[in-house]
Amino acid sequence: MQISEKEIKRRHSASHIMTAAVQMLFGKDKVKLGVGPWTEEGFYQDFELPESFSEKDLKKIEKKMRWIVNKNFPIKMQEVDEKTARELHKGDPYKQELIDEIVKNKEPITVAFIGDSLENAISAQLCEGPHLNNTSELGVFKLTKTAGAYWRGDEKNPMLTRIYGVAFENEKELEAYQQKIEEAKKRDHRKLGKELDLFTFSDLVGSGLPLWTPKGTLMRNLIVNKIKRLQSAFDYEEVAIPHITKKELYETSGHWAKFKDELFHVKGKGDTEFVMKPMNCPHHTQIYASRPRSYKELPLRFVETTMVYRDEQAGELLGLSRVRAITQDDGHIFCTQEQIKQELKNIISVIKDFYGSLGMFEKGQYKVSISVRDPQTPEKYLGDEKTWQKAEAILKEIVEEEKLEHEIVPGEAAFYGPKIDFMFKDALGRQWQLATAQLDFVMPERFSLSYIDKDGQKKTPVMIHRAIAGSLERFLSVMIEHFAGAFPFWLSPEQVRILPVSKEQNDYAKEVEQNMKKAGLRAKADLADETLGKRIRSARLQKIPYIAVVGEKEAKENKLTLQDRQDNKETLNTQEAIEKLLKENE
Amino acid sequence: MQISEKEIKRRHSASHIMTAAVQMLFGKDKVKLGVGPWTEEGFYQDFELPESFSEKDLKKIEKKMRWIVNKNFPIKMQEVDEKTARELHKGDPYKQELIDEIVKNKEPITVAFIGDSLENAISAQLCEGPHLNNTSELGVFKLTKTAGAYWRGDEKNPMLTRIYGVAFENEKELEAYQQKIEEAKKRDHRKLGKELDLFTFSDLVGSGLPLWTPKGTLMRNLIVNKIKRLQSAFDYEEVAIPHITKKELYETSGHWAKFKDELFHVKGKGDTEFVMKPMNCPHHTQIYASRPRSYKELPLRFVETTMVYRDEQAGELLGLSRVRAITQDDGHIFCTQEQIKQELKNIISVIKDFYGSLGMFEKGQYKVSISVRDPQTPEKYLGDEKTWQKAEAILKEIVEEEKLEHEIVPGEAAFYGPKIDFMFKDALGRQWQLATAQLDFVMPERFSLSYIDKDGQKKTPVMIHRAIAGSLERFLSVMIEHFAGAFPFWLSPEQVRILPVSKEQNDYAKEVEQNMKKAGLRAKADLADETLGKRIRSARLQKIPYIAVVGEKEAKENKLTLQDRQDNKETLNTQEAIEKLLKENE
Repeated sequence: MQISEKEIKRRHSASHIMTAAVQMLFGKDKVKLGVGPWTEEGFYQDFELPESFSEKDLKKIEKKMRWIVNKNFPIKMQEVDEKTARELHKGDPYKQELIDEIVKNKEPITVAFIGDSLENAISAQLCEGPHLNNTSELGVFKLTKTAGAYWRGDEKNPMLTRIYGVAFENEKELEAYQQKIEEAKKRDHRKLGKELDLFTFSDLVGSGLPLWTPKGTLMRNLIVNKIKRLQSAFDYEEVAIPHITKKELYETSGHWAKFKDELFHVKGKGDTEFVMKPMNCPHHTQIYASRPRSYKELPLRFVETTMVYRDEQAGELLGLSRVRAITQDDGHIFCTQEQIKQELKNIISVIKDFYGSLGMFEKGQYKVSISVRDPQTPEKYLGDEKTWQKAEAILKEIVEEEKLEHEIVPGEAAFYGPKIDFMFKDALGRQWQLATAQLDFVMPERFSLSYIDKDGQKKTPVMIHRAIAGSLERFLSVMIEHFAGAFPFWLSPEQVRILPVSKEQNDYAKEVEQNMKKAGLRAKADLADETLGKRIRSARLQKIPYIAVVGEKEAKENKLTLQDRQDNKETLNTQEAIEKLLKENE
Repeated sequence: MQISEKEIKRRHSASHIMTAAVQMLFGKDKVKLGVGPWTEEGFYQDFELPESFSEKDLKKIEKKMRWIVNKNFPIKMQEVDEKTARELHKGDPYKQELIDEIVKNKEPITVAFIGDSLENAISAQLCEGPHLNNTSELGVFKLTKTAGAYWRGDEKNPMLTRIYGVAFENEKELEAYQQKIEEAKKRDHRKLGKELDLFTFSDLVGSGLPLWTPKGTLMRNLIVNKIKRLQSAFDYEEVAIPHITKKELYETSGHWAKFKDELFHVKGKGDTEFVMKPMNCPHHTQIYASRPRSYKELPLRFVETTMVYRDEQAGELLGLSRVRAITQDDGHIFCTQEQIKQELKNIISVIKDFYGSLGMFEKGQYKVSISVRDPQTPEKYLGDEKTWQKAEAILKEIVEEEKLEHEIVPGEAAFYGPKIDFMFKDALGRQWQLATAQLDFVMPERFSLSYIDKDGQKKTPVMIHRAIAGSLERFLSVMIEHFAGAFPFWLSPEQVRILPVSKEQNDYAKEVEQNMKKAGLRAKADLADETLGKRIRSARLQKIPYIAVVGEKEAKENKLTLQDRQDNKETLNTQEAIEKLLKENE
């Protein structure tokens, strides 16, 4: 989400005012300061505080902040010399460390302060801005929580106290924000994932390593199969690779030099150094390279849904949003330069169909971002100028031809090629980057991939990396929160719950279940010895799209009463009901 | 395969006679001796030989062996004291090491020799027998190859020269053996795997880590889907797990204490010790344990086709037969004791159907082995006596009821429960253990798994481990060699190759291809600019079950001429052909 300059100023100023309030309450010499930036959500400031501090102090700090706001203090910035800066943060090792760096980089030192002049300021600190002009402009604000945070995010450093807050122009905006937070809590995929029994974590297996229960696995398979079906017209071929490799594979791809410290390293009894795969492309190049290729075989399109591993910090892991074992619906296309455009169009067609089936490819709901080179630094990119120019032009052509809402982002291309990312807005307006297609002019060359062209010449293919759902973990976390667990019919692990009114209809309910299953619907009869009301509530809690109630009359007439999530009821012949549901399944 | 006592004696004696021949040719003092056992195939002896030795010397050794055979030397065994033994192998560090051990274990020292007495023997060495009585009984023999072999299989020890040979009662048996070897070479899955483009290895990825090409992956999927379909009546549910875990999971399961040196260890930046999974059961217990369970939910049946990792020695890796990344079609059933029998029957029904569809579940083609406790050592097994008795009785009942050819093998049960293994004979008469079902009374307890029974009591479920294909790598290596690449119709990656007689029929061939694909057949039109003969040969080399030739007449009449692998021809209406093939697909 784009945040306006005004809101950035508001959030950043709120952080300064909070700092001033904390200093006034605990004493300037008792408080040391880490960083205090604005964020997507609001703002925070890291503090080293006296031991007496507790979450209860937030109210006091808010009160003091209000006092500062009401005093109409100016907020100003000023360049200072090193000595002044060091004097200002005397005894504060964190700010001194930051000053060391600014001096080393020969950058100007600026401080921000609240008050008429630096000398008379109620609070001042090293800062690059931007700010509001006066504390009175702050609007409404709220401190939301505190958390521990290592200085510079490094667990070898001291732990500081981070105080978070939000700031808005008016009460209405704050209320909307608070409602959104409440709604997000209700939709939290960690909470719903447990309630709907989709996945679990085990202390014995480790954090960031989800275990997929039958229902969650079914949803994963439904997604993968849907994508498979949508792209079946484009001759993708499945391949399968092991999850480890010798490090030599990544030495060749170039990943070893850049990322070796980020990888999971694997050691057996022997001397060979193995690594867990953090991506699949290098493995897939080896299938391409397993025999000579002719232009007649291209494009070759390999797909595989498989897990990759990233050594995320334990503290950064979060439900399915940030995990250590990531399932990618990965694909790699090896093609000639002439084939790039058609291949990209095919990929976009699948993305459109797939997100369309989720109701997410509507105007204003999605955005396409095209990452091209920074024209100022052509030396940062590998591959020849002509190929790049052509590829970037193709990407622009395609989004025009397909009339996609898009933006061109210079400088965001990878060093190996330009890319096209698809962002989708969820029900709470949060934006997620999910699908992607990336051109790669470098890896085929590094792995000496080749094909014999029409003219008998050996040529290097282009590689396209593509993912439709992206990471299944992330995708499912977004789906769970977007639909609040009430998934579209095709994605629901259970589609119909059949409820006999009384025991007398148990046999009939079982029969309906069998018929629905045979037709390919995911149906289940609930014959538990409970009241109908209780069984309806249980089906509602599981957010099953339909319940089919069968009483004496229905059983006699071979019918059922279908009830959707909005309690619309319809009594249908069983066969009609099956046909109706099968139609919805498409 | 069971080898008769007579053949064991023949093979082992052949090894002694070979040793005598080598000693006579190179001089007893120039030759040091490793071990010389009989094997499944024949025999070998490890030697430290003078540098002058080469594979060419095998002929000379055979000649000298024949001389020894013709001399009708007795072969005898005799117990000796340590001094005599040490004197006999003076200067031979390997045999001295073996003597050290025998002395340490206070076992009797026996030597075998060729000749009237130990003093007059042409050759003598430390040996436990058994042997023929006279060299004249040897029959026919052949030295087959030499290879390097580390002393005691440890790469830190010196490399010895291993000479392999075979021995038979008569020429006819030797010829049959040689024919079988020739046939096995033709069927070698490494050779056929390359020719049919099913899998590949990459030096960059590492040995023992197969990469599955599109065709091989398709075959894997066909197998997995077939099993899925066959067991769909039994309510198996798919789950999905990451390939790593904290070591704590295996500490709890008990595997850590026993196998930690055999595992691949995984290290990231943090201190957590991760391991690559060598089996899936402990992970699956954690899905069971993710919430309270009631007797109403049992049996719970989790299945997953996923890779496990074993740190095999590089020297032991062999094509798909012995790999480091093994794909298991694994399943774990959690049930009550009362449910064991029905669950096992369900598993056996799937095994019967699956191997039946491959023509391998015929009388004499398969064997069932039931592994029970060794009644002499009840202390070796965990779990209570009554449960064991009942479980073993159930296994015996089932094989009787199902009229399966079987044998009961005492002492072969795992410490955690009895098991039932399915062995299948391939086209060369080699026997392979593929499917298995194992009862487990221990792991549920170690992981504190429980369910609330009818009576409200907390009880521990029984676990059944089951695999139908076993390891997909091993299974496919067996399939490739058994069928010599000419797979059954349902398992063929390409089922029909459509060949237009001339370019004029290209469009029609494409149309037939499209219609067949739509019907769910794996068809491909070969429109290459080659003669029909050449395109037929190419289809034959790929062992495609059917070729469909379409000439002018066929195109005009909407027909095709179907030709199977035995060249049986049949001209059919395209729709008829599709129906015929679809029927065969089932």
